[in-house]
Amino acid sequence: MNAEASVDCSRAEARRAQILAAASDCFRAHGFHGASISQISKTAGMSAGHIYHYFENKEAIIAAIVAHDLDWLLTLSASWRAADDVLEAMIDGAAEGVKRNLDRSTAGLNLEILAESSRNPEVAAIVQNASRRCNENISEILRLVRKGKGLSIDDATIATMIDVLGTMFEGVLARGVRNPGLDADRFTRAFQGAVRNLITTPGFPADPRA
Amino acid sequence: MNAEASVDCSRAEARRAQILAAASDCFRAHGFHGASISQISKTAGMSAGHIYHYFENKEAIIAAIVAHDLDWLLTLSASWRAADDVLEAMIDGAAEGVKRNLDRSTAGLNLEILAESSRNPEVAAIVQNASRRCNENISEILRLVRKGKGLSIDDATIATMIDVLGTMFEGVLARGVRNPGLDADRFTRAFQGAVRNLITTPGFPADPRA
Repeated sequence: MNAEASVDCSRAEARRAQILAAASDCFRAHGFHGASISQISKTAGMSAGHIYHYFENKEAIIAAIVAHDLDWLLTLSASWRAADDVLEAMIDGAAEGVKRNLDRSTAGLNLEILAESSRNPEVAAIVQNASRRCNENISEILRLVRKGKGLSIDDATIATMIDVLGTMFEGVLARGVRNPGLDADRFTRAFQGAVRNLITTPGFPADPRA
Repeated sequence: MNAEASVDCSRAEARRAQILAAASDCFRAHGFHGASISQISKTAGMSAGHIYHYFENKEAIIAAIVAHDLDWLLTLSASWRAADDVLEAMIDGAAEGVKRNLDRSTAGLNLEILAESSRNPEVAAIVQNASRRCNENISEILRLVRKGKGLSIDDATIATMIDVLGTMFEGVLARGVRNPGLDADRFTRAFQGAVRNLITTPGFPADPRA
């Protein structure tokens, strides 16, 4: 890539980031339906035509926001995988995840995306695809940790563990809303303990009667 | 109350229930902001004037929906308290809570209420008041269970435990959206195991360095 193309590229990246920040603010404040492209363009300080140049519609903006969140998690999880003690790195990472999901901006935006997913198949597909990619990634790390400790790594155990872990982290989005007086430090330590118990549980057999 | 007054009363109750059901459908389908009183009145098959006779505004409708959910939980938890084995009754009850929150209608409506709470102080206050009442109730039951097992019941432990428990249950609202292929039975058993571990954990001291 020559220097000129690279400048164009980073200018486009900056524009996209500017639109995503403005759209996030609008979705949080007015909801997905309440936020119009014209409102987003006003907040971003650029024309609606410019927005459409980068994003076909509001769903495409949601897809970019969700992709950005997935990147954050994949980067974080890569650092766990590279750690000397993968389990302890995950437990430390859990504190970062709690902090992020307790943040009012993150929580408001993500609750809105989840609410929209429950009525908008296009947004649901975006969220479900990101979940699948996230789960594949975390599954591999869980297998690594549990294998090292001689714990079962059958598919049923790993899949169920991922669902319970995901449930716990998503629940944090609602906690700050429900309990504004939350003692975040104490909560985080207790949450980390629950994550540790879950990850090191012997196993969830596919058929518990077997 | 004479017979006539009682008929009036139950007719009013039926009207209110009809409005709540219609409003729940509209909030789920169009979001809190997207759902207008005129739309709710059309769905309920009554005039907007009738709706305003029972509810001042959409926030008052949300308050009634949240109060109804709280009643459900208070009734359920009264049955735990009356059980021979309170802990086992709670664990059984956890399965009912998971089933309820995995239900797409419940999840859609509650995610919308949480998203609205994060931007609407009036709705946030409704949700927070209900959470406080719920927490007071569950706290008492947790103290009962833990005291019987010789586990610590200090305020810090109970408050933190309630926050982690609440987080887990609220996360279930998002799980069905994120993973439509969820194995609900296996998930529920694993979730119950995590709830049991949490409730029977030795304690979360106010100051972990102490």
